[in-house]
Amino acid sequence: MHVCTTRVRYAETDQGGVAYHANYLNWFEVGRTDMLRTLGHPYAQIERDLDILLTVTEAHLLYRGPALYDELLRIETRITEMRKVRFRIETRIVRAEDGELLCDGHVWLASVTRDGRPIPLPEPLAGLLTAELLTEEGKTGPQAVVRG
Amino acid sequence: MHVCTTRVRYAETDQGGVAYHANYLNWFEVGRTDMLRTLGHPYAQIERDLDILLTVTEAHLLYRGPALYDELLRIETRITEMRKVRFRIETRIVRAEDGELLCDGHVWLASVTRDGRPIPLPEPLAGLLTAELLTEEGKTGPQAVVRG
Amino acid sequence: MHVCTTRVRYAETDQGGVAYHANYLNWFEVGRTDMLRTLGHPYAQIERDLDILLTVTEAHLLYRGPALYDELLRIETRITEMRKVRFRIETRIVRAEDGELLCDGHVWLASVTRDGRPIPLPEPLAGLLTAELLTEEGKTGPQAVVRG
Amino acid sequence: MHVCTTRVRYAETDQGGVAYHANYLNWFEVGRTDMLRTLGHPYAQIERDLDILLTVTEAHLLYRGPALYDELLRIETRITEMRKVRFRIETRIVRAEDGELLCDGHVWLASVTRDGRPIPLPEPLAGLLTAELLTEEGKTGPQAVVRG
Repeated sequence: MHVCTTRVRYAETDQGGVAYHANYLNWFEVGRTDMLRTLGHPYAQIERDLDILLTVTEAHLLYRGPALYDELLRIETRITEMRKVRFRIETRIVRAEDGELLCDGHVWLASVTRDGRPIPLPEPLAGLLTAELLTEEGKTGPQAVVRG
Repeated sequence: MHVCTTRVRYAETDQGGVAYHANYLNWFEVGRTDMLRTLGHPYAQIERDLDILLTVTEAHLLYRGPALYDELLRIETRITEMRKVRFRIETRIVRAEDGELLCDGHVWLASVTRDGRPIPLPEPLAGLLTAELLTEEGKTGPQAVVRG
Repeated sequence: MHVCTTRVRYAETDQGGVAYHANYLNWFEVGRTDMLRTLGHPYAQIERDLDILLTVTEAHLLYRGPALYDELLRIETRITEMRKVRFRIETRIVRAEDGELLCDGHVWLASVTRDGRPIPLPEPLAGLLTAELLTEEGKTGPQAVVRG
Repeated sequence: MHVCTTRVRYAETDQGGVAYHANYLNWFEVGRTDMLRTLGHPYAQIERDLDILLTVTEAHLLYRGPALYDELLRIETRITEMRKVRFRIETRIVRAEDGELLCDGHVWLASVTRDGRPIPLPEPLAGLLTAELLTEEGKTGPQAVVRG
């Protein structure tokens, strides 16, 4: 599992007095970006050097409680499934102060060419992600799996 | 089903050359806002007069194809399930020019007090939403249901 | 002067209960996009066909009053100055219901290549913008000028 | 001068391949939030305890160069003028890696009541801001001033 943090910005609040629900997808992506940079394979580099895009094909979010302005959030990111073209990432957004879970969900990311055609995840990215998944699986057991 | 339109803003594109995936949640909400205004019960008024918030408790999105800058999008919104406290809205984002489905998904909205406690959907809002659901059900058959 | 409208989205409000101030720059851009489309030269086409970007080099905004959720805004856009590489656009955001001015300001846009080098505004774009400026000048007098 | 950092998010890029220009106002606000928290007077607390809002009445931005996805930005924030109701903050956004200035500008913030009436900056906030300004002035000379 990869962990990073961010703070709720004023721009991210809405008139209900809490963080607007669409921002969680931005934070999910902040977590993925940070994970890939930490794995030694920044996404900026993936786009530029491998000439592929990783596009979100599905997103699911469960909102558990509100995130408030200026609260420190812990973004927990882990890979839970690898396929040839796609992989699945689970993310949890937790209030850092007391560990309360505010939102959890997952996205599926697919490797596509600039004109949108699916393409197998290139090496060394596929290998890095699989290694990360297997490490995770070693820790958390059968819920994390590699499928064909 | 309620229909309105919006155009993809430059601010909503990302460096992949398409609309960033989090914006679809904003567009879903544009559709809900427009539907409630059309039903004669603007959400601004709900918050102010009934002193409740409608908070998103779950969101699911399937991304089918990219939305491009300045493309006109058709936002199709319909209520598909009513409960005491919560209701479910399905939304489809369609490219207006050729009718291609770009994204579909749903959110669950819950009625809560200002301090976040669930509270039954107040009248006349509950009645209006149920009437809209039943009209929809009459057209589309058993997939739209009212549950206890 | 070019006029279009937009509504304040829930996503655009902040916990102060009004539209967050950065959104006005998005609305300024909605106005420019709409103006260029109306002039017969959509910005999407400019980027694609002329292979230039129009980049904002300066922005100035005066906030006069709050824009509220779901309010209809009138975006008034006009070109006020043309140079070889750059041009200046003034924008006013007005509450449609009562005509109250909520924000006015201007941006300077510069024509640049993909790698960021300034490049003279290409034809037919330069001609269209100048024609629009001269029409405006004819209506509003000496405040709108073309400089070398 | 107060310094903090942030990274350019994918959500903040546009199809021009750089950070969209409106995001700089968000980053300016991230800098102000961080400064007030460091001064011991978080803005969240100001809104809640003093029952005032600090609203942006003017913003000016000069864009010097592009910020790219995942680049680390240094946000430099300093108070440059204090009045009874309003104060002025200058912000510089600098690429952390090489110190290149990407954008500088300022905003004026005014103290207002919940219904939008101007109200003198309350203590201890006014005192803290003035102390910060005077410290700054001691370092940078006459450009930072306190006016009546």
